[in-house]
Amino acid sequence: MQDVKEKFQAHILQLQDKICAALEKVDGKGKFEEDLWKRDGGGGGKTRVIRDGAVFEKGGVNTSVVFGDLPEAMQKHFGVTAPKFFACGLSLVIHPKSPKVPTVHANWRYFEMYDANGDIAGSWFGGGTDLTPYYLDEEDAVNFHTTLKNMCDEHDSSFYSKYKMACDKYFYNSHRDEARGLGGIFYDYLKPDVVLPAEELFNFACAAGESFIPSYVPIVEKHKLEEFTEDQKEWQEIRRGRYVEFNLIHDKGTLFGLKTNGRIESILMSLPAQVRWEYNHHPKSGSPEDDLLQVLKNPKDWIKLS
Amino acid sequence: MQDVKEKFQAHILQLQDKICAALEKVDGKGKFEEDLWKRDGGGGGKTRVIRDGAVFEKGGVNTSVVFGDLPEAMQKHFGVTAPKFFACGLSLVIHPKSPKVPTVHANWRYFEMYDANGDIAGSWFGGGTDLTPYYLDEEDAVNFHTTLKNMCDEHDSSFYSKYKMACDKYFYNSHRDEARGLGGIFYDYLKPDVVLPAEELFNFACAAGESFIPSYVPIVEKHKLEEFTEDQKEWQEIRRGRYVEFNLIHDKGTLFGLKTNGRIESILMSLPAQVRWEYNHHPKSGSPEDDLLQVLKNPKDWIKLS
Repeated sequence: MQDVKEKFQAHILQLQDKICAALEKVDGKGKFEEDLWKRDGGGGGKTRVIRDGAVFEKGGVNTSVVFGDLPEAMQKHFGVTAPKFFACGLSLVIHPKSPKVPTVHANWRYFEMYDANGDIAGSWFGGGTDLTPYYLDEEDAVNFHTTLKNMCDEHDSSFYSKYKMACDKYFYNSHRDEARGLGGIFYDYLKPDVVLPAEELFNFACAAGESFIPSYVPIVEKHKLEEFTEDQKEWQEIRRGRYVEFNLIHDKGTLFGLKTNGRIESILMSLPAQVRWEYNHHPKSGSPEDDLLQVLKNPKDWIKLS
Repeated sequence: MQDVKEKFQAHILQLQDKICAALEKVDGKGKFEEDLWKRDGGGGGKTRVIRDGAVFEKGGVNTSVVFGDLPEAMQKHFGVTAPKFFACGLSLVIHPKSPKVPTVHANWRYFEMYDANGDIAGSWFGGGTDLTPYYLDEEDAVNFHTTLKNMCDEHDSSFYSKYKMACDKYFYNSHRDEARGLGGIFYDYLKPDVVLPAEELFNFACAAGESFIPSYVPIVEKHKLEEFTEDQKEWQEIRRGRYVEFNLIHDKGTLFGLKTNGRIESILMSLPAQVRWEYNHHPKSGSPEDDLLQVLKNPKDWIKLS
């Protein structure tokens, strides 16, 4: 398959437009603002941020297309001599105002590296989507996972169970012994013609991105008008603290970005606006807050439960 | 000098009482609550937390005395065969409600490790105190540093300038190119009979702890009744975000604790209660908020300026 990078780049750019339009529509008030930025060394990005919408408190849907010299440390890490690289991806995090509407994160990316002759020395797709609610709605969890599973199944019947497990494992706050959220799918290092024939893998990577809107927007529609109390908002802010902890302590993408002079504001845009840390906070046993915690401590197989 | 560990342990326990009493007095309403905890493997601690005081929104003054097996990785790190260790210390972080009152952090600790015969294979003191205001008051900065310098000068005339620089270097958010606060002093690996004769070094370590109350409490008294606006509170919450970033991304003590099954609630007690992340926030040039940022980007020599 030729021109994977051009085609995937075109894919993420149209997907960015489509996702922003869908989120603006469900919000009804908030509009994305765009910041274009350039990267020293090659490439740049489009950061799109929504703030103080009717539904979304803070969110970003960002694309980047970067290329240039691959640091020696990374060549070593990959075990190849490949002095140049290309990477493009779409990364999004959406933090709704209401504690009844889940936070969502997704990312789809493609990476190529080149040997001294400029030939591809390695390439792969990575990505995933995961849901982080503040209150457990089992129907949402089942629907979200089912949308992702149906998408996966159209490409390879082994994908969903593998990538669902990888997601539970990755988005885990080990220092708290609890998952960040209800999971979804997470995959990385999917190499063309290794995992699937190149064109089929490309189609999967595109379909993964396209599954975002049907997996998330109906959940927003379902809950966006529900009432909530101050105490529920406080619980949301405490849980957002866990989100921050994951992103700053464990998330490889965030730490890689911070340590390689990525654009700080685009990287840390994943952090919620208002966050709270309470000393030694534990919800009452049997409360809706505790119901969520129990599931985070013991990730479920949502599809089997359905 | 005999019994350093018993004496330093006694020192930090009385200092914890004294600091809590001084902070309760300046607060006038809030009281510290105590949690005792035990460590699997040996020792434990006294976590004391103040919440929703008149002046202090959230703070902790914690002691711990821990001992047991020293992990192989740490023995390697120190380059010795020393299967057992002892450590004790006092660690505090105080987050006031008002953006006019600075946040403060301090820590004083002593570490010993033992060879297979139970003999001391290495021992050292570490610690420091640093101030993180939300608005710049140069007089506070000068007074804070002067108290620390005078204390240092009584023990060794080279200490203040060395440990002031070490503090500026350590409490630095490299991903933002700015200091966490206005610094103070920071020292580590101060070995008895190397840096100073054992008894003199012990006296310095104790004096460093005793300097906390005179360095910080007068600043609280000076500002605690000042009025502030919602916008100033928002700026404080944004700056608290930087504090969280430092502690979760860069602080060795926090990361070490999280990765070695420390008591999570005592470690993350350092995080402020209410925190905010705004996308791409920049204060207006020439504003009081910008005045602070300029100093954080270019740490000053407060004593020379006085």
